[in-house]
Amino acid sequence: MSEDFDAVDVIRAKRDRLGLSTEQIDWVIDAYTRDAVADEQMSALAMAILLNGMDRREIADWTAAMIASGERLGFSGLSRPTADKHSTGGVGDKITLPLAPLVAACGVAVPQLSGRGLGHTGGTLDKLESIPGWQASVSNEAMLAQLDEVGAVICAAGSGLAPADKRLYALRDVTGTVEAIPLIASSIMSKKIAEGTGTLVLDVKVGSGAFMKDEAQARELAETMVALGTDAGVHTVALLTDMQTPLGLTAGNALEVRESVEVLAGGGPADVVELTLALAREMLAGAGVDDVDPGDALADGRAMDVWRSMIAAQGGDPDAELPTAKETQQVTAEREGVVGRLDALAVGVAAWRLGAGRARKEDPVQAGAGVQMHAKPGDRVQAGQPLLTLHTDTPERFDRAQQILEGAIDIVDEGSAVVTSDLILDRIGG
Amino acid sequence: MSEDFDAVDVIRAKRDRLGLSTEQIDWVIDAYTRDAVADEQMSALAMAILLNGMDRREIADWTAAMIASGERLGFSGLSRPTADKHSTGGVGDKITLPLAPLVAACGVAVPQLSGRGLGHTGGTLDKLESIPGWQASVSNEAMLAQLDEVGAVICAAGSGLAPADKRLYALRDVTGTVEAIPLIASSIMSKKIAEGTGTLVLDVKVGSGAFMKDEAQARELAETMVALGTDAGVHTVALLTDMQTPLGLTAGNALEVRESVEVLAGGGPADVVELTLALAREMLAGAGVDDVDPGDALADGRAMDVWRSMIAAQGGDPDAELPTAKETQQVTAEREGVVGRLDALAVGVAAWRLGAGRARKEDPVQAGAGVQMHAKPGDRVQAGQPLLTLHTDTPERFDRAQQILEGAIDIVDEGSAVVTSDLILDRIGG
Repeated sequence: MSEDFDAVDVIRAKRDRLGLSTEQIDWVIDAYTRDAVADEQMSALAMAILLNGMDRREIADWTAAMIASGERLGFSGLSRPTADKHSTGGVGDKITLPLAPLVAACGVAVPQLSGRGLGHTGGTLDKLESIPGWQASVSNEAMLAQLDEVGAVICAAGSGLAPADKRLYALRDVTGTVEAIPLIASSIMSKKIAEGTGTLVLDVKVGSGAFMKDEAQARELAETMVALGTDAGVHTVALLTDMQTPLGLTAGNALEVRESVEVLAGGGPADVVELTLALAREMLAGAGVDDVDPGDALADGRAMDVWRSMIAAQGGDPDAELPTAKETQQVTAEREGVVGRLDALAVGVAAWRLGAGRARKEDPVQAGAGVQMHAKPGDRVQAGQPLLTLHTDTPERFDRAQQILEGAIDIVDEGSAVVTSDLILDRIGG
Repeated sequence: MSEDFDAVDVIRAKRDRLGLSTEQIDWVIDAYTRDAVADEQMSALAMAILLNGMDRREIADWTAAMIASGERLGFSGLSRPTADKHSTGGVGDKITLPLAPLVAACGVAVPQLSGRGLGHTGGTLDKLESIPGWQASVSNEAMLAQLDEVGAVICAAGSGLAPADKRLYALRDVTGTVEAIPLIASSIMSKKIAEGTGTLVLDVKVGSGAFMKDEAQARELAETMVALGTDAGVHTVALLTDMQTPLGLTAGNALEVRESVEVLAGGGPADVVELTLALAREMLAGAGVDDVDPGDALADGRAMDVWRSMIAAQGGDPDAELPTAKETQQVTAEREGVVGRLDALAVGVAAWRLGAGRARKEDPVQAGAGVQMHAKPGDRVQAGQPLLTLHTDTPERFDRAQQILEGAIDIVDEGSAVVTSDLILDRIGG
């Protein structure tokens, strides 16, 4: 690799709106990994990228350099095709839990490398860890074996995939440079491409509870990621989905596992079922499986069978009682009417403040904490009826949760127009 | 001081083109000084400032916070008014050397805190250190005594003035964030205001050999600094001056001292004399001294007398032989004609490469190294006539100096129009 670059020249080029060459990008990411480019230089570059952007070729080069910083997995030795899903994160987004076993039940292997929650959006691993005995950490060999035998694995990403991204993400978090679309896209896609899946379905969320509040930005992120995946030979499709209102009726770790099991048992909230099936159909179609209806596999218990095997393979007891919080408190309707709005961000922050999420990476989470919803937009309610139940082990947290929920629920007169968004706003790529 | 801010919130505010409040600015600079804001956070903020700018109020607050990070001097105990000059740096810019004693000879005290050279522009202290015995470091008490007795002191700025600026400048140097006008202006002005001078004259250079290549940028910098000084109660004026061509006929340490002594003796190159007198008149007028013509003080030897006392007061021998370089090489005219262009940047880089400047702060400089010019734009030359003499102690440096000088001198047919810029382009403030 060429050593003829200087960090200040690379920063200046992006600062002055000149494109970065492939060689400059390869050099700066390799040098950052080797500590030859300092954190203060990379953060200045990240801010220049955030403010001045990158074109598609630069984003592809940046992603390739991230991938080259670590190992690559591969699933070509498996007897069936693979498909993976990534969500940009939302409130009550437990879709991975029913989705992975459902798609596996339909004949496509699902290697789902997941993360933990930070801030108001929950983490898939935190949710599954509320199941007694379940382990997030799985070796590469064990993952391949589980994919072959069970068909689905949801586990922690090892530190070997795109290590430069891991370091850059931690830096962006403390320097106000998280919100750069080129860096978000390359961060997500470098890990998914390095993982080696054949098909990838992206769930890009839009709305108050999502990272992207604005549909145009979400669309740009989705298009960028679809182009990156497609160029790298991964069959990639994105759904733009609504995150103005929480998904389902729960936000919290064990609360969401319980709701996911209801979906696998053929029940559960309609929006969770709708999105799970839509994503499953995309994953199956991408993997070339077009003769199976995932709705059948939910209805006849095949998805539940895979769920039970998948949990058990990672040490979990699928029949164990899930933890519940020590204390609950209710939020009731102040008047009679129809729920007009239930703000996803406020519910997410409330669940977080109740103990379901963490403020810093090293904080523990409460398995039982969270928010249960009893009414969603469009539902009729009576004055005094419970709208939410708040759960926590530490009742001193109720006040700050109640505080963020003030003004988060609108009740309007019956007969008023309640505008609810479609759940699936658009489909990009494929 | 309030502790209610978070570095990421401050960075995001500037990133998103929101103004920073006085409280945010005070906090971030104080916290940076206390290591509560990390270098990687400050560099991201500096890049956001470079790309999104700051308004006048923010720049004034930033400057005030820099001043508050350290000590303040004051000259109100002196029996005469004070005036100081700052140049943004150019090639052959030895003006401080004749100017300080000249203004002192006219009755105004000159406390000139100066720096060392980095890159292609020389440093005033490096030049004076070529005088045997001369010491740059002077205590605050000794400085006051010298100002009272001699009237002029040129010395190193202590580390007590605006220490936050010192640290930020070093950070900007490695993160591609030097060229932000709000940060340049506040860096210069925080030190000058903390120093406590009554009058400040700024020499803002424009052209290939200057930091600002472009007149609009130089004008913006000058206007920003004049506003900052005026608001802080310092009588502040800026001259915009040409730096397309080197000043005078020398670039290098001892070479420039020799030329300065010629000016003090009533001779020297016309451009050096013109700029010295123009700046002296501004400093005297700002300090309220309007009955003295500095031209007389140059002609009758009073300025030379102050120079000799000023050098002697800091341990230097004004009669000592100045060092000369061990080796010289000439650049000759390829053809007969008229010099059309002599590029300041190329001459500055050549002097630097010959050993007159340093690449890193800790490098030594050669007292005798540099470039002597025998013809300037508009001068007639014969083929083969020497145009430049290169001086160095280390002859292996000649090749790289000659290399940068290729194409730096144009010789045009006699009778062709040679467009030379006015030396003083504009005057701002006052």
